[in-house]
Amino acid sequence: MTAQLEIQPIPGLDEVHHGDDLGAQIVAAAAVHGLEPGDGDVVVVSQKVVSKAEGRTRRLAEVEPGARAAQLAATLGKDPRIVELVLSESRRIVRASGGVLIVETHGGWICANAGIDFSNVPGAETATLLPRDADASARLIRAQLSAACGARPAIVVADSFGRPWRIGQTDVAIGCAGVVALDDWRGRRDALGDELSATAIAVADELAAAADLAREKADRIPAVLIRGAARWRTDDDGPGAAARLQRAAEEDLFR
Amino acid sequence: MTAQLEIQPIPGLDEVHHGDDLGAQIVAAAAVHGLEPGDGDVVVVSQKVVSKAEGRTRRLAEVEPGARAAQLAATLGKDPRIVELVLSESRRIVRASGGVLIVETHGGWICANAGIDFSNVPGAETATLLPRDADASARLIRAQLSAACGARPAIVVADSFGRPWRIGQTDVAIGCAGVVALDDWRGRRDALGDELSATAIAVADELAAAADLAREKADRIPAVLIRGAARWRTDDDGPGAAARLQRAAEEDLFR
Repeated sequence: MTAQLEIQPIPGLDEVHHGDDLGAQIVAAAAVHGLEPGDGDVVVVSQKVVSKAEGRTRRLAEVEPGARAAQLAATLGKDPRIVELVLSESRRIVRASGGVLIVETHGGWICANAGIDFSNVPGAETATLLPRDADASARLIRAQLSAACGARPAIVVADSFGRPWRIGQTDVAIGCAGVVALDDWRGRRDALGDELSATAIAVADELAAAADLAREKADRIPAVLIRGAARWRTDDDGPGAAARLQRAAEEDLFR
Repeated sequence: MTAQLEIQPIPGLDEVHHGDDLGAQIVAAAAVHGLEPGDGDVVVVSQKVVSKAEGRTRRLAEVEPGARAAQLAATLGKDPRIVELVLSESRRIVRASGGVLIVETHGGWICANAGIDFSNVPGAETATLLPRDADASARLIRAQLSAACGARPAIVVADSFGRPWRIGQTDVAIGCAGVVALDDWRGRRDALGDELSATAIAVADELAAAADLAREKADRIPAVLIRGAARWRTDDDGPGAAARLQRAAEEDLFR
């Protein structure tokens, strides 16, 4: 009996640079392992390489902290240049306490440090910022993949986010194209279920989490192929992760 | 090239009753599909069947709402008997607003309605409550599985929880045995990473999420086998999900 889902890392991508055709690079790296993305597959791509391809990197040496960043940095015990970067990527501070800075990004994601990350970025003190619109990133990568191999798998752009109440991070979707981001059962409940089973499954987040299991952080594997997920694949790119997975502020009890 | 991870639903479990040997039932159901859990596998088991096997079900007809439950139910527009059940399972209310009741359970999990659920429970208006100690449940199921088939795969007990900021639910671990629940890289960071890359991966939660992808809610598939996850498997049962994944109240900015 074959597995329902197969999760296959795609190692061996070259270091990604601004302007690179990420879709073509993923197809090439997959081919080395005898893999070819198919229409019914999902390709989960790490935020880090998407940001690099889009030139969303900043050298700390080029950041001038303003007065607000300097003050907040002093309070939090953080590097003022990093706080300046975080503020420039944010539309609202959600929490700033105990050395932790949790913000709502211009793109609407709530996460620590606006998703700014220094790990695995070559160059002295260079950070990646989140893609400006990771749903647009996902659509672009899907088109690139299609041009490179003919197939149009679904794309999920994933990043590791912490969460309230629970220790540790899990990978979640910050962008997607061609996938049912939210499998919404809320119209399909029965009478009693109506009270307590308001179930809508965040499929794109679960795909991101599943992909993360197939790569060790140390491995630097920026793309993962998920097979057997065709039932969530859509031909059109769809509304994306921001439209489907961001909870509206007025419906959120925790910001 | 074989997949790094395979996620295999185990359909066909009989309806589970109080006192059932869940491990033996999973082994039997897996055998029907030619599957045999191995030492390096992870078996993800849904909270629902664990609760049933442990007799953690309640008929609403037997619940007498107290004054506090009646008052809160009126405020929230909920059934007072359900609110009574939720309160009896909780040590603290985290939020009660807009028809939503989010609590900290006696077991330390923060979730809506104390994890009480009416879906897929036979009997008129019968609810499942969370297992009292799902880590103990996982250890028991592991021992039962071992007795039934000789192997000792890791066990994750999973439930669907909502989360702040993001729409939809994802499956998370509420109990585990024999698995690295948290892959903690916080001691392994470099100088700059130290500032922003405090990475600890909630592996048990990602395993739960990955398993959820292999079963449609309508399918009632209470057990899922994950192959290729041997690197997170431990011989000893370990400290469990509560010890590793529950954020301490004093380190939590959102309760």
